[in-house]
Amino acid sequence: MQKATTIFPNPPSIVTSAAVGGKMEHEGPYGGCFDKINDDPYFTTDTFEKGESQLQKQAVRMALEKANLKEDDIDVLIGGDLLDQCVGTTYGVRGYSFPFLGIYAACSTMSEGLLLASMLTAGGFAGLAMAVTSSHFCTAERQYRMPLNYGGQRPPTAQWTATAGGALAVSPEGKAPYVRGVTIGRIVDMGITDANNMGAAMAPAAYSTIREFFEDTGMRPADFDHIVTGDLGKVGSRLLAQLGDKEGLDLRSNHLDCGLMIYDSDKQDVHAGGSGCGCAASMLCGHFIPELRSGRLKNILFVATGALLSPTVSQQGESIPSISHLVWLSSERGK
Amino acid sequence: MQKATTIFPNPPSIVTSAAVGGKMEHEGPYGGCFDKINDDPYFTTDTFEKGESQLQKQAVRMALEKANLKEDDIDVLIGGDLLDQCVGTTYGVRGYSFPFLGIYAACSTMSEGLLLASMLTAGGFAGLAMAVTSSHFCTAERQYRMPLNYGGQRPPTAQWTATAGGALAVSPEGKAPYVRGVTIGRIVDMGITDANNMGAAMAPAAYSTIREFFEDTGMRPADFDHIVTGDLGKVGSRLLAQLGDKEGLDLRSNHLDCGLMIYDSDKQDVHAGGSGCGCAASMLCGHFIPELRSGRLKNILFVATGALLSPTVSQQGESIPSISHLVWLSSERGK
Repeated sequence: MQKATTIFPNPPSIVTSAAVGGKMEHEGPYGGCFDKINDDPYFTTDTFEKGESQLQKQAVRMALEKANLKEDDIDVLIGGDLLDQCVGTTYGVRGYSFPFLGIYAACSTMSEGLLLASMLTAGGFAGLAMAVTSSHFCTAERQYRMPLNYGGQRPPTAQWTATAGGALAVSPEGKAPYVRGVTIGRIVDMGITDANNMGAAMAPAAYSTIREFFEDTGMRPADFDHIVTGDLGKVGSRLLAQLGDKEGLDLRSNHLDCGLMIYDSDKQDVHAGGSGCGCAASMLCGHFIPELRSGRLKNILFVATGALLSPTVSQQGESIPSISHLVWLSSERGK
Repeated sequence: MQKATTIFPNPPSIVTSAAVGGKMEHEGPYGGCFDKINDDPYFTTDTFEKGESQLQKQAVRMALEKANLKEDDIDVLIGGDLLDQCVGTTYGVRGYSFPFLGIYAACSTMSEGLLLASMLTAGGFAGLAMAVTSSHFCTAERQYRMPLNYGGQRPPTAQWTATAGGALAVSPEGKAPYVRGVTIGRIVDMGITDANNMGAAMAPAAYSTIREFFEDTGMRPADFDHIVTGDLGKVGSRLLAQLGDKEGLDLRSNHLDCGLMIYDSDKQDVHAGGSGCGCAASMLCGHFIPELRSGRLKNILFVATGALLSPTVSQQGESIPSISHLVWLSSERGK
């Protein structure tokens, strides 16, 4: 089998990033990490979907502004989201004139976007490549589960889709953090059919990609400050550790999950944790990238996870295939 | 503004391609170009969506078989489709163990997939990169417009979503055809709101990308045997030519549109032509790539077009943003 891991001889640099969020994300433990907060779930538009688009529009603009970049500096924008036909993205960024590549990776969108942005810059095809994504609690609930007005009960395994977005830009040259390597995920389907238990569906995909990275590189979990998954939540994080235990891979000591970080599980009623493309993206862009830039963190693996289901096929009784893409981020460029 | 066009100094090669289709595609003028025909719209499954997945599964398998490739030879598969959350792709290819990158570009999916596969191989990140996509009349109608059982009337501007799929593999080394260059499209939204007139919505995006390629390269339409758009159909093709006329760019002499090729408009009741990711993909994989391989065609521009709407935002009164990615294919590798 071919190696899915690429280690960059000349690691590209993340030159800017921005995180935007909603009211609940502001009230969470990392509320201070957001560059912009929107208290209105409609974002002053008249529908939740148009609101979600604003998250991406804002994240891109903030990321540009923070690095004094102009729209014309960006060679390509890579983006996607959870909504049908990725309209959070396309309507969010249509006002910009960037060359645009749409991606779909469910909640692993930011790791796929960052991975591709890194390859396109490292390969010499872009001087500055941007990645963006978002999610919105109200759009996701009515699309994947029930309209909010229905007032459906959420089981304990359910996660809370973050109303958040993140954008970043990658350049062949620049300061820390650096993208040292990436592993492209493979689709894993262990037969989970419960759309209210995404953590269980996604944990095997995260484990598969993490194990493959360590096999391909000969590195060990202890080489990293943290292994950061996207939104496995309580259920999926427990499963990930157990999968590691079985094969002697310690994924307990330094594992973090953005879904368990973004909200305060005691005070905020989110059941098994946060989720959504915007969860991992905003924690990466608002917290981890600044920590790596400052040198407070040296090395992390960013491993966002995506459940590749749709309501249509779920209603047809199908199980949930999942995927997880991995990005090795470092405060050092390497030799 | 940055150039969206990349010309490859060492053009990658398309080493295999396969096209699969349904009954109506078989009855069309290019029916003999398909590697596999499925007369059953359910593809022996119990739902149209599961049926569409079979198109991608088959296209990938046929493309591998035609070049005596094994699954392990593929370093990355890039795929997407029109269905919510791209389930035609994810459920179609989950049985393969390829590293997988999901993309969303509506009916321009094959040009985005081929563009990315070319960059990843030319950049040294993959030895063999595969791209796949599909569309299915019955899944698209019930998702974008009306369930078939409703028996809705289709206006003359409506197009017929092809039940078809295509897959191809790109390598840094190999025989013709070669991918000489690509142009990443920009999102264009001219305010069209009629979801039954996709051709009109997409023509400006196709024109924008084609014009940008000629500006970036200094080449002219006459340098190509054909400029091949994806699925502009009758309405969009007319508009494209008119947009060219306005700026003195001759897009009449050698323009072809896959949507006008795949069906016989006199005998098959398809109104303004074919459409769908599978339309352009199957014409490329089943007809144009073999023609370039044999040398009967020397140079074409493959310019698939995508309408980036969703039913949700259409119902909210939104207009239709569109995109078009361009790939220059040649029987010659260049100097």
